[in-house]
Amino acid sequence: MPDFAAPIARLIDELKRLPGIGQKTAQRLAFHLLRVTPEEALALADAIRDAKEKIRECSVCNNLTDTDPCLYCSSPTRNRKTICVVEEPHNILAVEKTRQYSGLYHVLGGALSPLQGVGPEQLKIKSLIERLKGGALEEIIICTNPTAEGEATAVYLSKLIKPLGVRVTRIGVGIPVGSDLEYADEVTMLKALEGRRDL
Amino acid sequence: MPDFAAPIARLIDELKRLPGIGQKTAQRLAFHLLRVTPEEALALADAIRDAKEKIRECSVCNNLTDTDPCLYCSSPTRNRKTICVVEEPHNILAVEKTRQYSGLYHVLGGALSPLQGVGPEQLKIKSLIERLKGGALEEIIICTNPTAEGEATAVYLSKLIKPLGVRVTRIGVGIPVGSDLEYADEVTMLKALEGRRDL
Repeated sequence: MPDFAAPIARLIDELKRLPGIGQKTAQRLAFHLLRVTPEEALALADAIRDAKEKIRECSVCNNLTDTDPCLYCSSPTRNRKTICVVEEPHNILAVEKTRQYSGLYHVLGGALSPLQGVGPEQLKIKSLIERLKGGALEEIIICTNPTAEGEATAVYLSKLIKPLGVRVTRIGVGIPVGSDLEYADEVTMLKALEGRRDL
Repeated sequence: MPDFAAPIARLIDELKRLPGIGQKTAQRLAFHLLRVTPEEALALADAIRDAKEKIRECSVCNNLTDTDPCLYCSSPTRNRKTICVVEEPHNILAVEKTRQYSGLYHVLGGALSPLQGVGPEQLKIKSLIERLKGGALEEIIICTNPTAEGEATAVYLSKLIKPLGVRVTRIGVGIPVGSDLEYADEVTMLKALEGRRDL
């Protein structure tokens, strides 16, 4: 690669480590950062540093947070009888956006994937079971992704939790709202048929 | 937007300022940075800070550089009889990649665009003319983009420089190598016809 000054080359290399950012995009972002005012560019550097320093996992639900417990776990208005189990912290956003769920969360930190060496010990399952033992819980909504790994995790958790006398539910799988049957793959279509309900 | 912890929200906001990065991509990048080790995330923050601190414009050609003059202007092996005029520092890379150009560069810092308030005074044209006055120069290759602004800049520069007795050339415009005539727009096709050469 022809010659960038060393600090530019280093910046491009670091930007390239970000997911979905290739050589060309990294170059574009680097030259953008070099073009803007120092304040603007350093605001990004500071935001990264600040986030890495202040953000920790919630000791209760493993959500990423700057307070411990996190805002959901410490909120007096949330319904403490339901826990929604998700794979990653950003999945919470997808649920919150519905504005219809007011319960608590539990972040597993991934999904079971034996091929990638992710077994139950690698996920935050033990702490979930501990939370159930308090006794006040009525329902666990398993909100892992509808992928092979997410489904396997859902089945595993359900077998583990049901004997404890807590209701375990799984989010619905089917054709997305506003979509066209024509574009549905056969597995989604099959799941939609299986998940049919009386009208 | 539902609630991210403040440092996460700030990080997402800063990432969203980057060109081509929207809300979803910014979220994905932010959570990636929160997931990786502190060393990896801070390497990016440091690279931004380092680049902003060390990178300056070359006092001769306005290329972005950590040494002044830049590596092209200070190189003893470059041909000092030719200057390639580009709009932005990263355009130099496109020329260098050909490995066939060994002359010097001059970065204008944009192209003439009266509608956006960019006139000759906003571009580094004065310093280009100063460089010509040394007398050793034989050719100026105008390598601005083949857009309305880039063409206007090329015509403007050519009128300014030709009276000084220096040869002024413009890069060829036409169908890209490996492309198909079917996909050429009519203006490019017209330029390709105008730029035809004897075989």
